[in-house]
Amino acid sequence: MKILILNGPNLNLLGKREPTIYGNTSFEEYFEQLKEIFPNVELEYRQSNHEGSLVDYIHEVGFSYDGIVFNAGAYTHTSVAIADAIAGVETPVIEVHISNVHAREAFRHHSYMAKNCVGTIAGLGLKGYELGVKYFIEK
Amino acid sequence: MKILILNGPNLNLLGKREPTIYGNTSFEEYFEQLKEIFPNVELEYRQSNHEGSLVDYIHEVGFSYDGIVFNAGAYTHTSVAIADAIAGVETPVIEVHISNVHAREAFRHHSYMAKNCVGTIAGLGLKGYELGVKYFIEK
Amino acid sequence: MKILILNGPNLNLLGKREPTIYGNTSFEEYFEQLKEIFPNVELEYRQSNHEGSLVDYIHEVGFSYDGIVFNAGAYTHTSVAIADAIAGVETPVIEVHISNVHAREAFRHHSYMAKNCVGTIAGLGLKGYELGVKYFIEK
Amino acid sequence: MKILILNGPNLNLLGKREPTIYGNTSFEEYFEQLKEIFPNVELEYRQSNHEGSLVDYIHEVGFSYDGIVFNAGAYTHTSVAIADAIAGVETPVIEVHISNVHAREAFRHHSYMAKNCVGTIAGLGLKGYELGVKYFIEK
Amino acid sequence: MKILILNGPNLNLLGKREPTIYGNTSFEEYFEQLKEIFPNVELEYRQSNHEGSLVDYIHEVGFSYDGIVFNAGAYTHTSVAIADAIAGVETPVIEVHISNVHAREAFRHHSYMAKNCVGTIAGLGLKGYELGVKYFIEK
Amino acid sequence: MKILILNGPNLNLLGKREPTIYGNTSFEEYFEQLKEIFPNVELEYRQSNHEGSLVDYIHEVGFSYDGIVFNAGAYTHTSVAIADAIAGVETPVIEVHISNVHAREAFRHHSYMAKNCVGTIAGLGLKGYELGVKYFIEK
Amino acid sequence: MKILILNGPNLNLLGKREPTIYGNTSFEEYFEQLKEIFPNVELEYRQSNHEGSLVDYIHEVGFSYDGIVFNAGAYTHTSVAIADAIAGVETPVIEVHISNVHAREAFRHHSYMAKNCVGTIAGLGLKGYELGVKYFIEK
Amino acid sequence: MKILILNGPNLNLLGKREPTIYGNTSFEEYFEQLKEIFPNVELEYRQSNHEGSLVDYIHEVGFSYDGIVFNAGAYTHTSVAIADAIAGVETPVIEVHISNVHAREAFRHHSYMAKNCVGTIAGLGLKGYELGVKYFIEK
Amino acid sequence: MKILILNGPNLNLLGKREPTIYGNTSFEEYFEQLKEIFPNVELEYRQSNHEGSLVDYIHEVGFSYDGIVFNAGAYTHTSVAIADAIAGVETPVIEVHISNVHAREAFRHHSYMAKNCVGTIAGLGLKGYELGVKYFIEK
Amino acid sequence: MKILILNGPNLNLLGKREPTIYGNTSFEEYFEQLKEIFPNVELEYRQSNHEGSLVDYIHEVGFSYDGIVFNAGAYTHTSVAIADAIAGVETPVIEVHISNVHAREAFRHHSYMAKNCVGTIAGLGLKGYELGVKYFIEK
Amino acid sequence: MKILILNGPNLNLLGKREPTIYGNTSFEEYFEQLKEIFPNVELEYRQSNHEGSLVDYIHEVGFSYDGIVFNAGAYTHTSVAIADAIAGVETPVIEVHISNVHAREAFRHHSYMAKNCVGTIAGLGLKGYELGVKYFIEK
Amino acid sequence: MKILILNGPNLNLLGKREPTIYGNTSFEEYFEQLKEIFPNVELEYRQSNHEGSLVDYIHEVGFSYDGIVFNAGAYTHTSVAIADAIAGVETPVIEVHISNVHAREAFRHHSYMAKNCVGTIAGLGLKGYELGVKYFIEK
Repeated sequence: MKILILNGPNLNLLGKREPTIYGNTSFEEYFEQLKEIFPNVELEYRQSNHEGSLVDYIHEVGFSYDGIVFNAGAYTHTSVAIADAIAGVETPVIEVHISNVHAREAFRHHSYMAKNCVGTIAGLGLKGYELGVKYFIEK
Repeated sequence: MKILILNGPNLNLLGKREPTIYGNTSFEEYFEQLKEIFPNVELEYRQSNHEGSLVDYIHEVGFSYDGIVFNAGAYTHTSVAIADAIAGVETPVIEVHISNVHAREAFRHHSYMAKNCVGTIAGLGLKGYELGVKYFIEK
Repeated sequence: MKILILNGPNLNLLGKREPTIYGNTSFEEYFEQLKEIFPNVELEYRQSNHEGSLVDYIHEVGFSYDGIVFNAGAYTHTSVAIADAIAGVETPVIEVHISNVHAREAFRHHSYMAKNCVGTIAGLGLKGYELGVKYFIEK
Repeated sequence: MKILILNGPNLNLLGKREPTIYGNTSFEEYFEQLKEIFPNVELEYRQSNHEGSLVDYIHEVGFSYDGIVFNAGAYTHTSVAIADAIAGVETPVIEVHISNVHAREAFRHHSYMAKNCVGTIAGLGLKGYELGVKYFIEK
Repeated sequence: MKILILNGPNLNLLGKREPTIYGNTSFEEYFEQLKEIFPNVELEYRQSNHEGSLVDYIHEVGFSYDGIVFNAGAYTHTSVAIADAIAGVETPVIEVHISNVHAREAFRHHSYMAKNCVGTIAGLGLKGYELGVKYFIEK
Repeated sequence: MKILILNGPNLNLLGKREPTIYGNTSFEEYFEQLKEIFPNVELEYRQSNHEGSLVDYIHEVGFSYDGIVFNAGAYTHTSVAIADAIAGVETPVIEVHISNVHAREAFRHHSYMAKNCVGTIAGLGLKGYELGVKYFIEK
Repeated sequence: MKILILNGPNLNLLGKREPTIYGNTSFEEYFEQLKEIFPNVELEYRQSNHEGSLVDYIHEVGFSYDGIVFNAGAYTHTSVAIADAIAGVETPVIEVHISNVHAREAFRHHSYMAKNCVGTIAGLGLKGYELGVKYFIEK
Repeated sequence: MKILILNGPNLNLLGKREPTIYGNTSFEEYFEQLKEIFPNVELEYRQSNHEGSLVDYIHEVGFSYDGIVFNAGAYTHTSVAIADAIAGVETPVIEVHISNVHAREAFRHHSYMAKNCVGTIAGLGLKGYELGVKYFIEK
Repeated sequence: MKILILNGPNLNLLGKREPTIYGNTSFEEYFEQLKEIFPNVELEYRQSNHEGSLVDYIHEVGFSYDGIVFNAGAYTHTSVAIADAIAGVETPVIEVHISNVHAREAFRHHSYMAKNCVGTIAGLGLKGYELGVKYFIEK
Repeated sequence: MKILILNGPNLNLLGKREPTIYGNTSFEEYFEQLKEIFPNVELEYRQSNHEGSLVDYIHEVGFSYDGIVFNAGAYTHTSVAIADAIAGVETPVIEVHISNVHAREAFRHHSYMAKNCVGTIAGLGLKGYELGVKYFIEK
Repeated sequence: MKILILNGPNLNLLGKREPTIYGNTSFEEYFEQLKEIFPNVELEYRQSNHEGSLVDYIHEVGFSYDGIVFNAGAYTHTSVAIADAIAGVETPVIEVHISNVHAREAFRHHSYMAKNCVGTIAGLGLKGYELGVKYFIEK
Repeated sequence: MKILILNGPNLNLLGKREPTIYGNTSFEEYFEQLKEIFPNVELEYRQSNHEGSLVDYIHEVGFSYDGIVFNAGAYTHTSVAIADAIAGVETPVIEVHISNVHAREAFRHHSYMAKNCVGTIAGLGLKGYELGVKYFIEK
């Protein structure tokens, strides 16, 4: 079983950026923990601040992997291109947000990609990625 | 550890209503499975079609339980009273939806209660309740 | 043939409330006339001011009766729960309004339940209930 | 008693156009049945695809007939001229729609003429015309 | 002179819920003070989290009492049924809010019931109930 | 000097329709008075309930007459075709309304044609036509 | 017969400001012509850039003059106070605009005061004031 | 204790303007009564039709008085300057409206100043001023 | 192969109306060129300023011709009747606009008929009609 | 003559992605056909999923090529940067869409770039590219 | 070179009002510093809480001064009269805001006057006035 | 002191693109002048048409530089990713626009990044960059 953990813009700042909202663990540190939790799953991690690169990554794995756990960050709210990429591939995608986007600015309440995803997990911190992987394994 | 699983209107029809969207297991059957998954957690289940009763239940457990996994169904989109009840108690609440509400009618994209909850899990079927309980245990 | 006549909030005031809009016959009186018009139909009448009770009634008859003639009153414009209940049962529903809702306040022009009903009859006074029953018998 | 059955644009295609929505009886065939149901009423039928002609017909009968059962088709949603014509004459008008307009596109949910009509019957198929005539006779 | 003090959802949490906004006196304690202030008025107090029960209470007293001082809480912003109940009875109603609803979320700025009430008192804390009673006595 | 007085839908009902708003003189009677007021101007009068006919009339006179005093009635608010016709001809047009459209329904506050006209006169009754003709003569 | 010609903000710049839109006659010069046209009418002229002063002037003459021909300039679109002043006095008011406000920015299409005035004349240049006075004399 | 009663535009017409809405007592007469009700409070009264003067008055008393009972009239709905003035001073302000603004035009439902005031009293007639003063004394 | 070229309101002014936008060839002249380009196709041309006539023409050819190249002019933006006519017939329709409607007023950006057409060609001048015919021949 | 065929995000999936909407020819295969149709035109093809790269390509050819036939895919609806790039260069651009964007989701009905392009061709499948090239050659 | 520094409502409270947002220097103190920075420029300072006075000042200097550095305060968001005054004079105007208006309430994000000004400087504190003067001197 | 001058999409066309709006100096030429004006500041210049690269640059300098003077061009109006990047770093940012964005299309009036910046300078041409640098030096 192969699953891609994919992060969008500014998530490379995790641990540095607004720690009261996002905590102070870097994602690389968390990813090591995640691999320990799921020793039998082939987990891969990529991050980009480029909308086009995220589209490229989805195309790349989208006909062979078993799932994508995807935090598109700010592109969640503005990118039709990413939403179309998800609709265009076969691998199912779960949308994850670390913070509770519904408790923040109004423009963060809308997601272009949500309707093309299996589902959404928001506000449960880094734990959300683990729950997403667990869903793909056990569904 | 005590956790309330709370369901809103029409979820008593589960297994009967629109099975292509909601599956054909009744919630009572699923709840038995859930208790087996978490043998060490005190799980309780209530359902009501009455907005006011849901407010009453939240008040009742909201200063003593450790978590509420709450699928408010249609009241998600129309009830300020439930949203206020969640804000008014101390027990944290996770919002769960069986179907992917973002892939349905526009009026289902807005949730009054989301901003007062810890977070949201949507579209992952009955599995969403399990992931919610798991979050409360391990966070 | 079994048909439920179902009335929502404030319709128990009929004959008392704003008689220039709603006339001064109580619904109970009218219901007696209705039974005389359709002697071969099993007609039943219920009313509630509680959104949840209306959902309960729809569930109760919604897999065995042949039709519901339903005036949801104010809940027409605010209740997604009732709209979902109608979608979730098998019995067909006709939406009835005594007054011409389109000649009143703008918020009365929208009905959540209309799209899940067979159709709508509005503005024809108490006669609308009779026409609704007639439709179920002759369709 | 004289009643005009008036049809707006595209209703001359009835029986040909989108039969899954509108059925496959032509309106002329249905009108013959209608005359048999009400042998003591003077029924007249006119149809036009021209907004102005519909206004003309309303003016023509609007000070002498006892009722108009009017399916304005697409002009329901766009014509202030027809709405003004109804307001300007003395004959009462019932708005009829064959399909459930509320279950179709959003722009079909608004009717300019509704507030000037006695009431509305929608979604009950060709039966709606019969119920409209019945209302005028018995009210 | 008989006046009903009526409270809507979550006001039973008063003294417990968000004390920085609502203070820490329970309403029952405050009601005792209120009775002392107006020894010659027959004051009655009811509270419910159920929209339908609030409608029922209004019907019950609405043709015999001299006034209702009503804090509908969250239902202020969502309930057409309560607004219709107020319009349907003869007893005049004053809308009261403890906090300044205009300084809170935008959805709290709209009141369905306001236009059917005599007037509104907002933001003056529990004092608002006293001023409402005083108005009924002295107007 | 040649000036066309052009009236749109339902203005043929003048003197019959809603006399409290529009008065009870027919337009033909008023037109005779108008010709007496301006004995040296060649005045012509046409009316139609058909949007397309109004477009045709504008085309017909729009390259030879000196002015059009035009009350488009309901088409004022819905017709882009008439607005385009006015923009497409050389004869200047003044928009006239008998009643004060700004004191009526909201949809009567917008005029598609206004921006293509020289100007507007509204609310001054039949006198508005006279003032419009006077403007063309004296400007 | 006494009529006030009242001008709002920036109209004192007439003849200086944007002459391609407003022409290059000052209003004082035009007012002299106006007095010659109506030798038997007592005409008075005032202008102010202050919203409050315009309200004061309307109060001052509003129970004794026979008409106000009022170009409120920019306050047309923003002042509820002026609209209320017009509603509060007895003297009838005609709204005049020199330019065709409907051919300019969208925010100039709305007038708070229009619904409280007798009517409106727009786009006919300075001639509009004359037509307004003529209406008061001859109506 | 020093309290300013401040009235905005058109309230000088009280007793003259639209008496069915506002009653026929002039404010000066009412102010005499008010002083009798509160003999131990230093009450002062000012009125202006000028937005800027209202700002000036608020500045003038806003660092020394104990309260302002303020009916801003039409400026309630249009003035950010007054709202900012209230936010900029230390004296607390109560917003008062004589009529029930929520039962009038939609643009009267919004108040710029409400969120900067202690609270609002609307629809209780001139009594509202008395209740406002009482609040400042007893709070 | 039979194809109808259909033009809506004001296109009869082509060559006369706003030549800087639409060029100065009349459509009749252009139609002669078009017939020479496609000598093997049976081309027919009709124009009307009447919405109802355009509906009639679509009905007339809509079950026998192979394609309609249709410039509905202003009715593109206002006519649901024409959109319904296109949906109701079998002949496929291509929507053509001579000018780039997206570079003009906002109300020209919406087309009721677009979703019922095969596709749209806009802004390519009279060439758009040729490309439309070519599509029907070669698709 | 040099023309660039430019494709935006996800068009590299053509032939793979949602074939019921987009067909199953890859664009590279189609491009070979296109070159055969226009043997005398220098055709070049580029595709990118990166908004910035599309801007770069437009800059690169925008002062030397004779035309760009551009399907910007999802960026049509979200990219002001691409719209500005088109406005900033000299080479004319035609906007092409394979599917009928007006028959899909509402957010696909708006194009930022349309007003800066010569025109648009939508819904005519891959044929749309050919018609665009033909326009540049023959205009 | 003559430059007017013009301040709108509530800026006379500077140093007193909400010092966490606006600092605690009074504008008069700052103006002395400003004159020292630009010893060769004739600087003048005026402030008013009256919209009409600000219009008057702009008229007064608007045909002779070399620039106006204008902080219109709350009138920025509500005054069309001031925006028109700026458009009507010849002296160029720079809009200045001390705080970052875009980080405050939504109604402060819109400026009526911005489009008639040379440009805007916001959020740079009192420094913004200096930068505005510098622009006029060096441009 | 280290300051980054950062330019977004299409600003590499400066001097070539729409010179009537943007002037005909290339930014590289202007940057040389800027370095001469501030000989003691370490100025650096970068430009990209890629949203992701702009995010990357902000991350790169955002914990060590003293200021960023940033013209995000079209991304100002569409990029939440850039706005989040600014919020996520420590270096303060000033938003600069060469043209007066408020005098252009409506979609250019909104800036996602403004609320996360220190302030904004717009419409002052290339001078705006100099004023931004000056602010960082002297604040």
